[in-house]
Amino acid sequence: MYIIGMGDLLLALRAPHNERLLQTPCLIPAFSGAEMNVCVSCSQFGLKTKFIGAVPDNALGKAAIKELKKESVEPYVVFAGKRMSLCYVEKGANQRGSTVLYDRENISLMYVVPADYNWDDIFKEASWFHITGITPALSQSTAELALFAVKKAKEKGLTVSCDLNFRKKLWNYGKQAKEVMPAIVEHCDVLIGNEEDIQHSLGIVSDNIDTVKGHIEVEHYKEILDKVFDIYPNIKKIAVSLRTSISADHNRWSALLADRGKVITAKSYDIKDIVDRVGGGDSFAGGLISGFNLFDTDEDALEFATAASCLKHSVPGDLNLVSFEEVTALMRGDGSGRVQR
Amino acid sequence: MYIIGMGDLLLALRAPHNERLLQTPCLIPAFSGAEMNVCVSCSQFGLKTKFIGAVPDNALGKAAIKELKKESVEPYVVFAGKRMSLCYVEKGANQRGSTVLYDRENISLMYVVPADYNWDDIFKEASWFHITGITPALSQSTAELALFAVKKAKEKGLTVSCDLNFRKKLWNYGKQAKEVMPAIVEHCDVLIGNEEDIQHSLGIVSDNIDTVKGHIEVEHYKEILDKVFDIYPNIKKIAVSLRTSISADHNRWSALLADRGKVITAKSYDIKDIVDRVGGGDSFAGGLISGFNLFDTDEDALEFATAASCLKHSVPGDLNLVSFEEVTALMRGDGSGRVQR
Amino acid sequence: MYIIGMGDLLLALRAPHNERLLQTPCLIPAFSGAEMNVCVSCSQFGLKTKFIGAVPDNALGKAAIKELKKESVEPYVVFAGKRMSLCYVEKGANQRGSTVLYDRENISLMYVVPADYNWDDIFKEASWFHITGITPALSQSTAELALFAVKKAKEKGLTVSCDLNFRKKLWNYGKQAKEVMPAIVEHCDVLIGNEEDIQHSLGIVSDNIDTVKGHIEVEHYKEILDKVFDIYPNIKKIAVSLRTSISADHNRWSALLADRGKVITAKSYDIKDIVDRVGGGDSFAGGLISGFNLFDTDEDALEFATAASCLKHSVPGDLNLVSFEEVTALMRGDGSGRVQR
Amino acid sequence: MYIIGMGDLLLALRAPHNERLLQTPCLIPAFSGAEMNVCVSCSQFGLKTKFIGAVPDNALGKAAIKELKKESVEPYVVFAGKRMSLCYVEKGANQRGSTVLYDRENISLMYVVPADYNWDDIFKEASWFHITGITPALSQSTAELALFAVKKAKEKGLTVSCDLNFRKKLWNYGKQAKEVMPAIVEHCDVLIGNEEDIQHSLGIVSDNIDTVKGHIEVEHYKEILDKVFDIYPNIKKIAVSLRTSISADHNRWSALLADRGKVITAKSYDIKDIVDRVGGGDSFAGGLISGFNLFDTDEDALEFATAASCLKHSVPGDLNLVSFEEVTALMRGDGSGRVQR
Amino acid sequence: MYIIGMGDLLLALRAPHNERLLQTPCLIPAFSGAEMNVCVSCSQFGLKTKFIGAVPDNALGKAAIKELKKESVEPYVVFAGKRMSLCYVEKGANQRGSTVLYDRENISLMYVVPADYNWDDIFKEASWFHITGITPALSQSTAELALFAVKKAKEKGLTVSCDLNFRKKLWNYGKQAKEVMPAIVEHCDVLIGNEEDIQHSLGIVSDNIDTVKGHIEVEHYKEILDKVFDIYPNIKKIAVSLRTSISADHNRWSALLADRGKVITAKSYDIKDIVDRVGGGDSFAGGLISGFNLFDTDEDALEFATAASCLKHSVPGDLNLVSFEEVTALMRGDGSGRVQR
Amino acid sequence: MYIIGMGDLLLALRAPHNERLLQTPCLIPAFSGAEMNVCVSCSQFGLKTKFIGAVPDNALGKAAIKELKKESVEPYVVFAGKRMSLCYVEKGANQRGSTVLYDRENISLMYVVPADYNWDDIFKEASWFHITGITPALSQSTAELALFAVKKAKEKGLTVSCDLNFRKKLWNYGKQAKEVMPAIVEHCDVLIGNEEDIQHSLGIVSDNIDTVKGHIEVEHYKEILDKVFDIYPNIKKIAVSLRTSISADHNRWSALLADRGKVITAKSYDIKDIVDRVGGGDSFAGGLISGFNLFDTDEDALEFATAASCLKHSVPGDLNLVSFEEVTALMRGDGSGRVQR
Repeated sequence: MYIIGMGDLLLALRAPHNERLLQTPCLIPAFSGAEMNVCVSCSQFGLKTKFIGAVPDNALGKAAIKELKKESVEPYVVFAGKRMSLCYVEKGANQRGSTVLYDRENISLMYVVPADYNWDDIFKEASWFHITGITPALSQSTAELALFAVKKAKEKGLTVSCDLNFRKKLWNYGKQAKEVMPAIVEHCDVLIGNEEDIQHSLGIVSDNIDTVKGHIEVEHYKEILDKVFDIYPNIKKIAVSLRTSISADHNRWSALLADRGKVITAKSYDIKDIVDRVGGGDSFAGGLISGFNLFDTDEDALEFATAASCLKHSVPGDLNLVSFEEVTALMRGDGSGRVQR
Repeated sequence: MYIIGMGDLLLALRAPHNERLLQTPCLIPAFSGAEMNVCVSCSQFGLKTKFIGAVPDNALGKAAIKELKKESVEPYVVFAGKRMSLCYVEKGANQRGSTVLYDRENISLMYVVPADYNWDDIFKEASWFHITGITPALSQSTAELALFAVKKAKEKGLTVSCDLNFRKKLWNYGKQAKEVMPAIVEHCDVLIGNEEDIQHSLGIVSDNIDTVKGHIEVEHYKEILDKVFDIYPNIKKIAVSLRTSISADHNRWSALLADRGKVITAKSYDIKDIVDRVGGGDSFAGGLISGFNLFDTDEDALEFATAASCLKHSVPGDLNLVSFEEVTALMRGDGSGRVQR
Repeated sequence: MYIIGMGDLLLALRAPHNERLLQTPCLIPAFSGAEMNVCVSCSQFGLKTKFIGAVPDNALGKAAIKELKKESVEPYVVFAGKRMSLCYVEKGANQRGSTVLYDRENISLMYVVPADYNWDDIFKEASWFHITGITPALSQSTAELALFAVKKAKEKGLTVSCDLNFRKKLWNYGKQAKEVMPAIVEHCDVLIGNEEDIQHSLGIVSDNIDTVKGHIEVEHYKEILDKVFDIYPNIKKIAVSLRTSISADHNRWSALLADRGKVITAKSYDIKDIVDRVGGGDSFAGGLISGFNLFDTDEDALEFATAASCLKHSVPGDLNLVSFEEVTALMRGDGSGRVQR
Repeated sequence: MYIIGMGDLLLALRAPHNERLLQTPCLIPAFSGAEMNVCVSCSQFGLKTKFIGAVPDNALGKAAIKELKKESVEPYVVFAGKRMSLCYVEKGANQRGSTVLYDRENISLMYVVPADYNWDDIFKEASWFHITGITPALSQSTAELALFAVKKAKEKGLTVSCDLNFRKKLWNYGKQAKEVMPAIVEHCDVLIGNEEDIQHSLGIVSDNIDTVKGHIEVEHYKEILDKVFDIYPNIKKIAVSLRTSISADHNRWSALLADRGKVITAKSYDIKDIVDRVGGGDSFAGGLISGFNLFDTDEDALEFATAASCLKHSVPGDLNLVSFEEVTALMRGDGSGRVQR
Repeated sequence: MYIIGMGDLLLALRAPHNERLLQTPCLIPAFSGAEMNVCVSCSQFGLKTKFIGAVPDNALGKAAIKELKKESVEPYVVFAGKRMSLCYVEKGANQRGSTVLYDRENISLMYVVPADYNWDDIFKEASWFHITGITPALSQSTAELALFAVKKAKEKGLTVSCDLNFRKKLWNYGKQAKEVMPAIVEHCDVLIGNEEDIQHSLGIVSDNIDTVKGHIEVEHYKEILDKVFDIYPNIKKIAVSLRTSISADHNRWSALLADRGKVITAKSYDIKDIVDRVGGGDSFAGGLISGFNLFDTDEDALEFATAASCLKHSVPGDLNLVSFEEVTALMRGDGSGRVQR
Repeated sequence: MYIIGMGDLLLALRAPHNERLLQTPCLIPAFSGAEMNVCVSCSQFGLKTKFIGAVPDNALGKAAIKELKKESVEPYVVFAGKRMSLCYVEKGANQRGSTVLYDRENISLMYVVPADYNWDDIFKEASWFHITGITPALSQSTAELALFAVKKAKEKGLTVSCDLNFRKKLWNYGKQAKEVMPAIVEHCDVLIGNEEDIQHSLGIVSDNIDTVKGHIEVEHYKEILDKVFDIYPNIKKIAVSLRTSISADHNRWSALLADRGKVITAKSYDIKDIVDRVGGGDSFAGGLISGFNLFDTDEDALEFATAASCLKHSVPGDLNLVSFEEVTALMRGDGSGRVQR
């Protein structure tokens, strides 16, 4: 049964090492996209995946499709528009954070409508549909496409997950996230997002404003998540990744998972020498979907997702190129980084 | 006295060596633009130059401005819009030509109007204004900007040159080149372009359709150029670069220059191991403007332009990073490529 | 209908630029293999392809499979043995030829037997099977595998092609090519090879020893090919690529195609600035199989194959990453290498 | 009003990554120089700057001038001598410190005299002159040039700053720093240096030899700085950067600033994953001069300088390529290194 | 007097930076081998060294010999077999350990016998012979070669050292380490290895199974080492490197040295930003042999070895390219990583 | 018996590909030096070689020594002075020649005197001594060292060869080549140089000024060489390399060799795609010395030298990294550049 992602494919252009953009004349290109990253994660862990998207009919678009195939993600990608979506990435260090500069105007995905895809074919033998808050943020038409797709997926009986992924800079077409996202979330079974995502995307805030950050994070989150569960009776589970940023190189990383009954938390990882943290959130979503499909308990699914995304921080690029065996070894406690030979 | 260029600044992203685009994950970025390339050529030969343009207010736009400064071109560049103009370049070889893939939708230059610049300040101490057919090709507003600028330049008494530079793929906003370019050419003193440019940009064709290509090229051109001179009484000189493409690596290169009286031709160069031919035409225009400003005769100006642009084919990137001394040495006949030590 | 190739997958490690091996510490890896190269060519031209092979169950083997998928070649690749097949490549120049140093001992393909594959599944919806003389050269078991596969393919009604590809250095397991290849060739419909291949692989030599090389090449070949047709009544067509090596950078390139009636020859290309000639022969075989599947006449098929493989010489690496449109443009005569923009 | 720096321009050649020099055949060149670095810092923060120096009349010297222009530093650089100043840099790690190997014999700056510059022109519209102890260390003539320049700058009413920058290995021409520097320091308003610099450059030592390092650093420094203030009545402020080197990758970084009344200290930064610490001191001086020019209080100036130089440790190369906004964000406390998107 | 090492030479192919193998198409080659690494360490510290081995007679084998010469190790390397020994290395980070993938089947060293070397010539002017447990692990014939060599070395009066270096994955030819190693260890004077090495190579285990790890490590080791001393009366000293792996980037590093009387321990180093830890154990062995030859006391020898191998962690590649002066500076306590200029 | 070279060792820093110097921030370092290049050539062809020189006692000097050892050249290199000799190289193309920018002021070799070497030890088991006109060009002291060495070599009975290698830009210490070189040439057996070298270094010109270049080159040379033979009775043979530079990429290459009786000429090579021509002359000298030592006739020696240096043009860097087998294959006529596999 297939895991399906739908969204924008972009070409990420990275400055090498820790250089500022164009400090020296070199850019390292790699295809990315929140939902593509999730599909690739699921593929790495042995699941069958499809990706729905659009690219221009040129050398870049064709290369994007080759990349999906390389990673065993079946492309349902149509040619549309004239522009490949782009972003430029600087890797930070210490007190200087990484930067992502988007160039996503007039991109291919804005030129497709639901009728451009054969949904029956897409959803055949499929069990899971994943989307993120990035697609509805790009344009009115992509928001409509996203809404159409989640409805269609529910109709077909798939589990639907949405990673809220709120990116303020992307909401430029005249609507706010909280005007658009609730209609999509109404069709979701699994929601992924943190407090800020929930506030901006769904307009739900914590009453409990004095809650001290950190120590009672779980209790704090419980309150907000309960509100979400109240408003969205369709939602079965909500997952939250918990990142503490000590510096650009050093983060603490954990996660929690709530259902209508309880909140469970994952082991916390101290990641002191981050290689690349872009794509970290996507690797959590991909790990979680994989976890739900590969393990029997929520506890295992959450630990798998957290360990998988912990390892992502050691891999350059947006794709979480680690194996099921590497993740489960870390879940079992082997995080000492010894040489394998 | 300043030479001024106005146009679009773009970031050219090249695949390394002779690779196809994204064959391996590396792109070599360098700023370019037909008029920028002309300005840099003039700067290399010791002339004072300014460049009028627009970039987005981000790391890429700022890097573009730094590049102009590095090459001693004074930037009159405003922040506008959100997108840096881009192109992707594959270097061909043998029977496979190089390709240039443009990504110039919604770029900064489309978001400026004449009032965004202080023209009095720009044209102060200036003697020459250069534009190309690329700017009017991009959008209605850039076409208007171009027309405004050539008129203003004439008003201020500058010599105006225009390189027709017809690029079919760029004329996408609903007008054809020949609907737009004549109004601009009416204000020009010096025109640069070949037969195809003249036909598409000005709608002027040769009657003499049977003319055998090659042998009587000069006579053939004379007839067409005379038509241009007839229709545009303002034009004083027309220059044509003559490229024979034997393969992607091997071109023959010469040029001719006509005034209302006669047509002169330059020495012909056999360029057998082209390093980079993108920017070759711009280097001819830059060499010609420099030649008119640095030499007393049209013959010298033309030979200088031809030698300068011949050398461009040995330099990677779009900028003609050769010196006045190197060009004049070639003009004098030293093209043996001996080691200088 | 699928085109199927079977053979060894190897990791080719190239010294950069024109360096000698390990002159500086950098090697550029890329997957290759005569039959894989053929499959990728067919895929580039829009045909459906499968590849049958074996790799070790490690990071290299998995990367090889990803590469096949990237190029839209369906992998029927099993894990076997412990070693990835390797070769090291130095790119020559001028009078110094390129070198290929093989390291193909104890490789994965030697550890598979026919029973490791599901042949019914492999040959389902397939129309063409391609093999080369490299597979039988590697070991007794790979020779047996090759023989089994061609028999099976014939049984299933596929067209079988074999590129003789004689490589003296590879025949190390105690048998000579001419002891092994005839049994395989007995099951082939299309044979690819030159005079030397035919002599070493099939033991067939020209009587006509004084024939002057070059001028009457076609007549000369006709005589030998007639002998092959006599001995192997199964063979319907024989194709010969004709390379004249003037220097490591400069080759002339053409081909001929014979059936039992006539010999036709392709246009000849002068390739003066070779980017990479390794994989040139495979690109001819891939172009020919594609040509037979995409065109109606032998003439077109041969011209397509010759133009495709001409273009391969302008692409770095072993894979012929050119498009159907690029090849047909060259077939139609556009080999001037002009910039496409 | 311009900030002016004067000094040696050098080409720094770095081994890549953490390699030892020439471990692999690659060197990464970048122009540098204590005073150039200061000028570039000031330019980055929006101040107008000029640089006075000398280079050889060759490709390297011209490239150095282009680099200054790129960074918006107006070059008052004359051609003199035959050698570009050089240094070779190895980046250390852990317990192994970085190394800088100088090659500054017979360099261009040694071949200029005050009469080679038009000082009236240089100091027009200028408010600040900066020099370091490196220039007087190079040769008798550069020491004389430095003394001439500070006198001239005072004469013209500029604020003069000097970063003592004591480098034992550079003082090779027969004089010790303390024989030369006092005459220069007599004309300075702002002095930058640490205890060791003050001891070697000015011959002033602390009586208070038992002072425990670290805890009462400020009190300890106060005593020495008071001595400096006593001997040099011209000095108005003294700034000291406080670096604690835990390893090559991990430093603590703070600073203090004294006037004749009080000593203030900056926030302390823990920099655990240093990207490049060469140029760190210069970025402090550049930040301080900028701070004095952009803020109203010494407190703000010092915090700006410390934050700016903290960020330098995350940027490869000698130039502090960070923006005013990035520095002030860190001053306000945002040092968590979160991704900016 | 020469230090002699004997063993396998391999070409290590590293993925760049922290990439997964073949993530991007680049591999960084460097010659390595446990005993070669030891010889190079000794050479770096000023000792005379020879290396006994075998390579194929091709470009790779010749390059390996050039590398030995470059590092002042005299090669006694014969041409044999057809395959260069290989390994592929991925550099880990954080919780993800580095990986080493061996490709050592049918390698040159398996094709030599003792009679291929002139042992009298090899052992002339030699004082020390070093071998590791890797050579006997490769094949029956290399185990026999190793045994022959240690016997011969003892016969000639050399000190013999053996680094047990147990690598489970290498013992594939049908024998276990503990069936082979004891016969070799019977001829050794100095043994290097940790508890796991001793258990697997010699079959000796600690009774004292409850010993808490860490705190009483020395006492714990004393017990095991005493058993080794009992069984092997020839052994005079046993050295153990003590690595605590906190993450792939962060290790603690120390060592102990036992003779029949006492156990001494070295200073412990905290290495937080490991550049390359592959070759760390070899650098300890090389440092120890050098220490015994360059210092008068075991304490100094051990501290030298520990400091030398600590510094190795800051150098990319397998060779410990640090100097005697750098090591002794660290021994004396200078591990602050300050810039040297 | 050893071939000995003496001279300056320099670090050549090349811009990558065909870039202008510092066009992008990368320099490729490699050690070089006319006489080192000769020694490495001889080593490649199996001869024993030593090199006499001087380097600074730093990381660069030590790396230079490692490079000699790597190439099997025994270093008699002392530490002296403070500066490594440097040059910067741009690779030309087409009409633009390559450039070499020297930075050889105050280099190590200027700080040695004959007494710094043990000449008895150096000349033990030596049969040939080679020097070039570069060493005497650098300074008065290097000229004296060169003269001392050639005298000593003659005294010891060695064959002495000198490659005149006139470089106008290097003669800066107040003497002209023709004031210095004759004294050295008086001790030479074999002279290498062309007409221009002979004129500038020895002051000998052709009377026969109207000789048409090209066709009667041999006759023309005969006349001049006879004059040299007349004035220098010690000289037994004179070799001249004949380069015709058609472009930076395309040279014709041949040579002639005269003794007092006759002049013989070598086969001429057309080299159309030069990879690197710097070091071409040195490779001829190295090939010639090797030829005299490895072959019985002057004809073979000359053909070997010409073929060896022809191949050098296909190898990047200054060292002629080709084998005896490759050279003799070309001598025998195999210059078709076919792939070797």
